[in-house]
Amino acid sequence: MRQRHKPWANNFLKENTHLIIPDVLKNKGKWQELFGNDNPIHLEIGTGKGQFIAGMAEQYPDVNFIGIELAKSIIVMAGSKVKKTGCNNVRLLHVNAAVLTDLFAENEISTIYLNFSDPWPKKRHAKRRLTFHTFLEQYQHILHPDGEIVLKTDNQGFFEYSLVNFSQFGLELKEVNLDLHSAEDPENVMTEYEEKFSAKGQPIYRCRAVFT
Amino acid sequence: MRQRHKPWANNFLKENTHLIIPDVLKNKGKWQELFGNDNPIHLEIGTGKGQFIAGMAEQYPDVNFIGIELAKSIIVMAGSKVKKTGCNNVRLLHVNAAVLTDLFAENEISTIYLNFSDPWPKKRHAKRRLTFHTFLEQYQHILHPDGEIVLKTDNQGFFEYSLVNFSQFGLELKEVNLDLHSAEDPENVMTEYEEKFSAKGQPIYRCRAVFT
Repeated sequence: MRQRHKPWANNFLKENTHLIIPDVLKNKGKWQELFGNDNPIHLEIGTGKGQFIAGMAEQYPDVNFIGIELAKSIIVMAGSKVKKTGCNNVRLLHVNAAVLTDLFAENEISTIYLNFSDPWPKKRHAKRRLTFHTFLEQYQHILHPDGEIVLKTDNQGFFEYSLVNFSQFGLELKEVNLDLHSAEDPENVMTEYEEKFSAKGQPIYRCRAVFT
Repeated sequence: MRQRHKPWANNFLKENTHLIIPDVLKNKGKWQELFGNDNPIHLEIGTGKGQFIAGMAEQYPDVNFIGIELAKSIIVMAGSKVKKTGCNNVRLLHVNAAVLTDLFAENEISTIYLNFSDPWPKKRHAKRRLTFHTFLEQYQHILHPDGEIVLKTDNQGFFEYSLVNFSQFGLELKEVNLDLHSAEDPENVMTEYEEKFSAKGQPIYRCRAVFT
């Protein structure tokens, strides 16, 4: 219903099927073919308005980026942002993250980004958190054995939960950073949300984890 | 040399050999005998001035507490603090933490506390950090399979390092708390250092980890 207020969204989707892929299921195992190269594929789950994926695509032209976003009205904003960069190494999927293993083949993804995911703070909503074990099982399936998960959040509870859950699932932590912006990291590409909250002096947490 | 200024320290040690154990090596595997019960033994490495161990001993009379402290001038302060509580479930050892496996038998310890350990921030000093793998190996040996490590610190770098090192050693995180004092925890016994720094509004980090 949200889309009613954005009639341009449907037009944008129709006109940009090369960027926001309509038939998401038919590329399983064949995403590199679609990109036309054999570069590694990095996946952002919850792409939002696209500042991160657009910035990353510019910074790393030798990486293929796929962004998943559930809200149609949001993904068109991401699409519009990516378009402005002129980058050719991004594809966006308007689809629920619950079907990752339908979208991607085993080992097809090199890196998964979880940026400022919804923390779902209530205990009874834990299974919706993107670091709940049912999601980790999917990540493990689609991630290359050398691949990693990179998680950023400003939410203390979600970060604590994710560290514990990663650990209990058997993931190994490669990095934990409890104040990402205390030191300048020229390689860090900020999301819209991150920019806003770190400007307020709120610490941003990041970790990198691998399946062992 | 530090002790020269505290002549009472040597007297205190002489008069309190039941509390600050002089011959630390001869109790290996027999600490429960010394306590005269079969209660679990909790070990604090770096007991400092003793506020934590004294408070814990009062709060948990059915637990035996052993505190290790390297500095003689400090351990007598801890001894004096414990004495004032009248608790009988504490023993203090004036000894370097590097010889843990000489002090304790396999599985003899139920819980290890690392409270505000020296962070040794320089990379070349990493091996002195109490969560360096050589220490973890000792902890694994003396800890009961059901036992856990409980770490508290205000030092961001040391906490990040410890989480990663625990994870890479194969420890499993049971809890991560990035702001221990944001919510009241009536069971948390504060160290002197913790009291001072949390009063300044600095976040206190805690984690609990088990060998798997």
